[in-house]
Amino acid sequence: MDCITNRRTVRRYAARPVEDAILHRLLAEAERTQTMGNMQLYSVVVTRSPEMKARLLPLHFGQPMVTEAPVVLTFCADFNRTVRWCEQRQAEPGYDNFLSFLNSATDALLYCQTFCTLAEAEGLGLCFLGTTLYNPQGIVDVLGLPRLVAPVATITLGWPAEEPAQTDRLPLSAIVHDEHYHDYDAQTIDNAYSEKESLPENLAFVRENGKQTLAQVFTDVRYTRRDNEALSRGYLDMLRHQGFLRE
Amino acid sequence: MDCITNRRTVRRYAARPVEDAILHRLLAEAERTQTMGNMQLYSVVVTRSPEMKARLLPLHFGQPMVTEAPVVLTFCADFNRTVRWCEQRQAEPGYDNFLSFLNSATDALLYCQTFCTLAEAEGLGLCFLGTTLYNPQGIVDVLGLPRLVAPVATITLGWPAEEPAQTDRLPLSAIVHDEHYHDYDAQTIDNAYSEKESLPENLAFVRENGKQTLAQVFTDVRYTRRDNEALSRGYLDMLRHQGFLRE
Repeated sequence: MDCITNRRTVRRYAARPVEDAILHRLLAEAERTQTMGNMQLYSVVVTRSPEMKARLLPLHFGQPMVTEAPVVLTFCADFNRTVRWCEQRQAEPGYDNFLSFLNSATDALLYCQTFCTLAEAEGLGLCFLGTTLYNPQGIVDVLGLPRLVAPVATITLGWPAEEPAQTDRLPLSAIVHDEHYHDYDAQTIDNAYSEKESLPENLAFVRENGKQTLAQVFTDVRYTRRDNEALSRGYLDMLRHQGFLRE
Repeated sequence: MDCITNRRTVRRYAARPVEDAILHRLLAEAERTQTMGNMQLYSVVVTRSPEMKARLLPLHFGQPMVTEAPVVLTFCADFNRTVRWCEQRQAEPGYDNFLSFLNSATDALLYCQTFCTLAEAEGLGLCFLGTTLYNPQGIVDVLGLPRLVAPVATITLGWPAEEPAQTDRLPLSAIVHDEHYHDYDAQTIDNAYSEKESLPENLAFVRENGKQTLAQVFTDVRYTRRDNEALSRGYLDMLRHQGFLRE
């Protein structure tokens, strides 16, 4: 499928607007995605206003796509709607727990990815912001997410104003396991990562960061233990605050 | 996109085999999916052998697709490969925490969904098994998943031997929020769910289960508080066992 084979993350967008007609058509088509018990445990908040983008910007560490893209979409795990339906129909819901968060997060992420494929097939470009997991309580507050709703993904969306080079990927043999998991040894790790490590942009990346190996750029600069542990506590605090961790 | 607009879950498969050539091509194409820091924090275990399917079957509550489909794919959140790479490259990883589980689960689910779209575009049919979250430690044991690898999704895959009716979906207005979350009131809940509740198959479902409302079938029969709370503990225990919840 060309839109997948040729895909690249797009961070710069043309001035051309993304009309509601096309956005809503694609969001509706994506609803065909499989969903747990056909409950559709997700919601999407559409951000277009400059004021709201400006409030989201620092929560995504100032990444300029947040204010420059015509549309920002925040995909949320959502058991609130289902619970309100239950309460209004003489049913007693028990969805204030970790499994229910996982079920709704799964629904939201699968839906998000179908939407991304549809949008890219339409010629739109997008950037998936991993930062959604970094400051979730801030996003809850800005978007007014009620109990049993948690942000799990954000994309910035627009018509592409750039066509960047595709980034590298691991060989398929590094990610597929026949019948059971075959753990990696020194040789299979080398096979998986040597091409990535030899790319000029990655060699430059190591040099610019003053490191000996590419892996050290990840562990010491980009995704450090200290940050990961603090952010883990932050996400769990948000889940508790949103009612997903009732003991 | 027709393969999405026309999609339905397929639970019955033709005898025609799913060749490795096509399976590997689609799994490789799906690698274009966006991934956090380009780390590709996922693995896929391919189950074809009758013995392994028979061991997975009870973990998926005996759903017959597990043994009847030519292929079962288990998508795993995987930080093991990245950590082994780091350790072999004089880098000190800090990925034994909840954020790292969320990052890798996100990567695995997005990758899974791109694969599903590609497979369905190719004419294959599949069923997404929510039961992966119900007995995760059993899946870890059967597939031999090491530390920092956790199962997050399973699909059964084959050439369709049925074309079931499409299931209903909520109106788009029920899942999209402009600028901020607009919480539901009695009227918007009725608007969202009345069509679903009036479908003959759902009316029959309520009657067969001896309930007053469709919501009660969900809360009292299909997804009960007692089950959800026990399964929440089970998934957290698996995450702890797999090293993702270091405090």
